[in-house]
Amino acid sequence: MEASVGVVHQSCPGYVSEPFATLVANRPDDDSYPAADFRTEWGPIFHRGRLDGTARVLVLGQDPATHETISRRILVGEAGQRLQGLLAKVGISESYVMLNVYLYSLYGQGGGNRQLKNQQIADYRNAWLDALLVNTEVTAVVALGDLATSAYTSWSTSRAPAASGLHLSSIRHPTYAEGAARGSGRPLAETTADQLANWNDHLPALAAHLTPEIAVDLTPYGTAWSAGDLAPIPERDLPPGTPAWWRDIASWAVRSGTDAQQKRATITVTVPKGARAWPPLKK
Amino acid sequence: MEASVGVVHQSCPGYVSEPFATLVANRPDDDSYPAADFRTEWGPIFHRGRLDGTARVLVLGQDPATHETISRRILVGEAGQRLQGLLAKVGISESYVMLNVYLYSLYGQGGGNRQLKNQQIADYRNAWLDALLVNTEVTAVVALGDLATSAYTSWSTSRAPAASGLHLSSIRHPTYAEGAARGSGRPLAETTADQLANWNDHLPALAAHLTPEIAVDLTPYGTAWSAGDLAPIPERDLPPGTPAWWRDIASWAVRSGTDAQQKRATITVTVPKGARAWPPLKK
Repeated sequence: MEASVGVVHQSCPGYVSEPFATLVANRPDDDSYPAADFRTEWGPIFHRGRLDGTARVLVLGQDPATHETISRRILVGEAGQRLQGLLAKVGISESYVMLNVYLYSLYGQGGGNRQLKNQQIADYRNAWLDALLVNTEVTAVVALGDLATSAYTSWSTSRAPAASGLHLSSIRHPTYAEGAARGSGRPLAETTADQLANWNDHLPALAAHLTPEIAVDLTPYGTAWSAGDLAPIPERDLPPGTPAWWRDIASWAVRSGTDAQQKRATITVTVPKGARAWPPLKK
Repeated sequence: MEASVGVVHQSCPGYVSEPFATLVANRPDDDSYPAADFRTEWGPIFHRGRLDGTARVLVLGQDPATHETISRRILVGEAGQRLQGLLAKVGISESYVMLNVYLYSLYGQGGGNRQLKNQQIADYRNAWLDALLVNTEVTAVVALGDLATSAYTSWSTSRAPAASGLHLSSIRHPTYAEGAARGSGRPLAETTADQLANWNDHLPALAAHLTPEIAVDLTPYGTAWSAGDLAPIPERDLPPGTPAWWRDIASWAVRSGTDAQQKRATITVTVPKGARAWPPLKK
């Protein structure tokens, strides 16, 4: 490899081993995911993290958002970095796997709850949970928000022997504070304090049910985010060749358009200012 | 897999086997690709097609364009479908591998020729060509345009024993006609006729140096594109979960912005009208 200069890069190997190769090949399309409730036109986005048996904790999120639709891995961006920070506190740096309740991004109101009863969607999700939780090294599950908690509970009640060995931390979603502030009119500072208090409540029990890979630091969160509360998303979590700024907290993808039709059809990807390393350009 | 309904999907497994895993890990960054000549900020895009030893023909393109930057595989869209059509004529449906002269998209004028002399870039490209052409099943190389021909010739002169067994078809790039019409002011119909005549010239020798996997049909192209001249890009060529319209001929990605700075920073992705399968939306 005489051409090798500079750093050695890592990347996510994808879905090459079983049962994940078969799960991805047999994913449900809009036959079971109705296009009224899901943005099926952007394709399914499956996971982030370890599928090689080294995961010690499963994180269950909700549905892929705008950035995830381009990066093809879930929980990237600021939500992802907040979550990485939480995992770091309980001693986990890379030994995790993340899954969502839904393969496709939710569209419109009510679909999130309504589609919890969709048996085809649940069967497929449960096949992933079986693969990741039955006879594996995972000892704890972190459910992000109510949908994730419901979906996990639905799995765990039907898999009583396997699930009995798993700790469940059901916590606020990493961007709960922003959503709650928008929805309620309460100040973001208040909803952020609520979210961090909720995370603090769950830290000790979660740590107690995990074998750490790095030093545990259960110093509670304050009432606002501090710089050290976020942790970077590892390069090895994203597909080969994807730019580093796809893992940064600076927003880089947005649904754009002047009406609902155009907005559903469009994602604009913009290199953040801090990642524009090119020389001055001629007009 | 009780959740399995509907079709079984195929996808590109990526860079899991050697030497490709190591080549991708050791890719050159902007240490050897200057950001004045290349859009390094979007990350490298490596290939499309078979890396499992089943390729019988190597296609050497130039550099990744806008669609490729999002799909993370080269020669998708209309250029890709024209190329698939050419390969189908000589009996190849899936047993190909495609590489570009450059990992990153060219920016500005002159860089394409100037950077042919960049030794670090050449060394890395040659490591890929070694992996794909030395002691493999590949019997023919299709070089798309002058840069590709130069890069291939540079490799083949230094690898005389291996290269002597390989046929070279040096043909017009699949979108030569559009570029030539824009650059010269000649009508697109004329430049298209030129391109198709050029492709016709090379079909018989290319077919003679390939073992076909499907029926060969050397009926020459006409003086304009016909419907049957294009062939679909196989689902198995793109990463898992990517939407089918990322392989269609309808354009879906564009660099947008009102000045050079913004245009370099922005790609807008739009679901083509024909792929908007969702129900009517409320405003």
